[in-house]
Amino acid sequence: MKISPDDIDRIAAGSAFLATGGGGDPYVGSLVAKRALSEFGDVELMDLNDLADSAIVIAVGGIGAPVISLEKLPNGREQDWALEHLERFIGKSADALIAYEVGGVNSLLTFIAAARRGLPVLDGDGMGRALPEMQMTTFSIHGVNGTPMVVVDEHGNNAVVTTCDTNKAERITRNIALAMGGQCTSAESVMTGALVKKVSIPKSITLSMEIGRRLRMTSNNADEFIEDLRELIDKSVYGVVEKLLVGKVVDVERKTEGGFDYATIVLDDLEKKERGQMRISVQNEFLFAEQNGAVRASVPDLICIVDSETAAPITSDRIRYGQRVTVIAIGAPAICRTPEAIAVIGPRAFSIDADFVPLEQLTQSDS
Amino acid sequence: MKISPDDIDRIAAGSAFLATGGGGDPYVGSLVAKRALSEFGDVELMDLNDLADSAIVIAVGGIGAPVISLEKLPNGREQDWALEHLERFIGKSADALIAYEVGGVNSLLTFIAAARRGLPVLDGDGMGRALPEMQMTTFSIHGVNGTPMVVVDEHGNNAVVTTCDTNKAERITRNIALAMGGQCTSAESVMTGALVKKVSIPKSITLSMEIGRRLRMTSNNADEFIEDLRELIDKSVYGVVEKLLVGKVVDVERKTEGGFDYATIVLDDLEKKERGQMRISVQNEFLFAEQNGAVRASVPDLICIVDSETAAPITSDRIRYGQRVTVIAIGAPAICRTPEAIAVIGPRAFSIDADFVPLEQLTQSDS
Repeated sequence: MKISPDDIDRIAAGSAFLATGGGGDPYVGSLVAKRALSEFGDVELMDLNDLADSAIVIAVGGIGAPVISLEKLPNGREQDWALEHLERFIGKSADALIAYEVGGVNSLLTFIAAARRGLPVLDGDGMGRALPEMQMTTFSIHGVNGTPMVVVDEHGNNAVVTTCDTNKAERITRNIALAMGGQCTSAESVMTGALVKKVSIPKSITLSMEIGRRLRMTSNNADEFIEDLRELIDKSVYGVVEKLLVGKVVDVERKTEGGFDYATIVLDDLEKKERGQMRISVQNEFLFAEQNGAVRASVPDLICIVDSETAAPITSDRIRYGQRVTVIAIGAPAICRTPEAIAVIGPRAFSIDADFVPLEQLTQSDS
Repeated sequence: MKISPDDIDRIAAGSAFLATGGGGDPYVGSLVAKRALSEFGDVELMDLNDLADSAIVIAVGGIGAPVISLEKLPNGREQDWALEHLERFIGKSADALIAYEVGGVNSLLTFIAAARRGLPVLDGDGMGRALPEMQMTTFSIHGVNGTPMVVVDEHGNNAVVTTCDTNKAERITRNIALAMGGQCTSAESVMTGALVKKVSIPKSITLSMEIGRRLRMTSNNADEFIEDLRELIDKSVYGVVEKLLVGKVVDVERKTEGGFDYATIVLDDLEKKERGQMRISVQNEFLFAEQNGAVRASVPDLICIVDSETAAPITSDRIRYGQRVTVIAIGAPAICRTPEAIAVIGPRAFSIDADFVPLEQLTQSDS
């Protein structure tokens, strides 16, 4: 399938939804991506099954606190530079690119680099959502070392990082991101085609585009959108879709520290007042929702927030007091719920003192 | 001149003195260096004038807060790894190594790598002392970009950093050092022989060795040592030698933050009590000494502290309440006192609100 500039807004909107609050605000990224496609031509979105097993695949994306990107504008060449530096370092050229997460910005950076280079972008990613740290990709969980990895900033400063394990790479590159002003762009996780087919979330980019298509219908409200969403998710690798809450944001306690956005969001429940307030914990992404002492949804399952009136996804850096929002949860793909995955992306990996309980079990006990 | 294991303790002791409190505690570094020379043979200490103009020279040293190195033991291979990674990245092999600063550890790391590789070490360095940040070398002040630069830790994690300017490299590699546990080892500042002759402090390693020889005479006390020191410094590129104070450490306020050791040292003046207390400001190194509102010595001039009884140099990470010490100042080499240099290594570069006044002028106005 060819991706044209018109598709970019759909991918951005749907990705911003699946990104559970993280992955970057799509506005600037969309402008840069549409311009790249206009200038260099459409980009092939390739199904994982169509990729040669011997192909070299490189993951591209942004690193840093999303709130920074609202003010720190990109140069537009970062992803090309990162890719070129990594290719030079490994002595091989990429045959295809993949996003390491689905995100309003992070789904688009691959297209920017791919347009300029005439490469295909794979229809899949390494998280099926956004998550804050690089050892949290399905690539890394399945043993792919994220390094050698290149990080660059908008001035062309760059570093090639090679480490014994991806946890260390995360600490090093997070600190480099801080030195680069809080955000940078990376190329990483060199994989063969055979490997990437085993360790990716398939079809997450077309799913984003389909979700985005529904989101961009002007007559939408959140309830109608949820019906559309159920239909799309039913045909995907994701699990159940649940409307967790229709409410109002009454408090956002926020700090940016160590290269991450942290927040606690407090919501009044406008439909079922007797349930009390919902609290959502944030590290770049919406991670954990509890209400009246009960867990409502937990990472790696997806917690997504949209405007109740328009169904527009709200990213964690844009959430604020007074917004009328609908909180939606989606079961994570099975590959993200294995014991190996839960050890790295379950609630305890974020210092949340709770075991992971799948969304469908929480919902059953609640009814 | 051939450097044998017996010379290492002398170089370490003299370097620890010239390092003005920084550059690392020499104990562990000396053990590693002596072992490397015992295993791989003596190392040629080469006069800068004997170096071919076309030679490739690489600077090697440690980065981080000195206090960390008291507990974080090296692997012993870090400098070799850093050198190898940088050589592979630039596609050239080093013909000689140079220390980027004189320091109890940083003068020795070159010898460890040189022994294993059979390379000469140049008799000179890029500071004529130790200073806390990498844009503060005479290399950088004269326009040499410190990058591409490699940093490694004791586990083999490493990064190749390339930047537009050395200030950015300093921020990035400092943050990498933090992610590596507070300390790492670097290879950087690739130069030709012709260039290194113009931008180095010459003969600082033989000067360290000669100072170390006097320091290691067992009958020494600080006053005798100062007489020996005057004789050696008179024949060097450095300026005057002054005894600033004989005193007692009565307070050390210390913090390790952002990858640096910061401290303020307060000393009672035991010889001239009427002068009041001396305060010395520290960022890894002893930077600025004032007494009773008057500046006594200021970076880039050297402020060195030795034990009054034994003349043993005291590094900033070892200074503590109750020590009887003698504070000695030495005029910096002329290359460190140019307006270009003062902009980067004068007191204002360390947020000290004072103009640089050369030691010899301070001393005159004082007498």
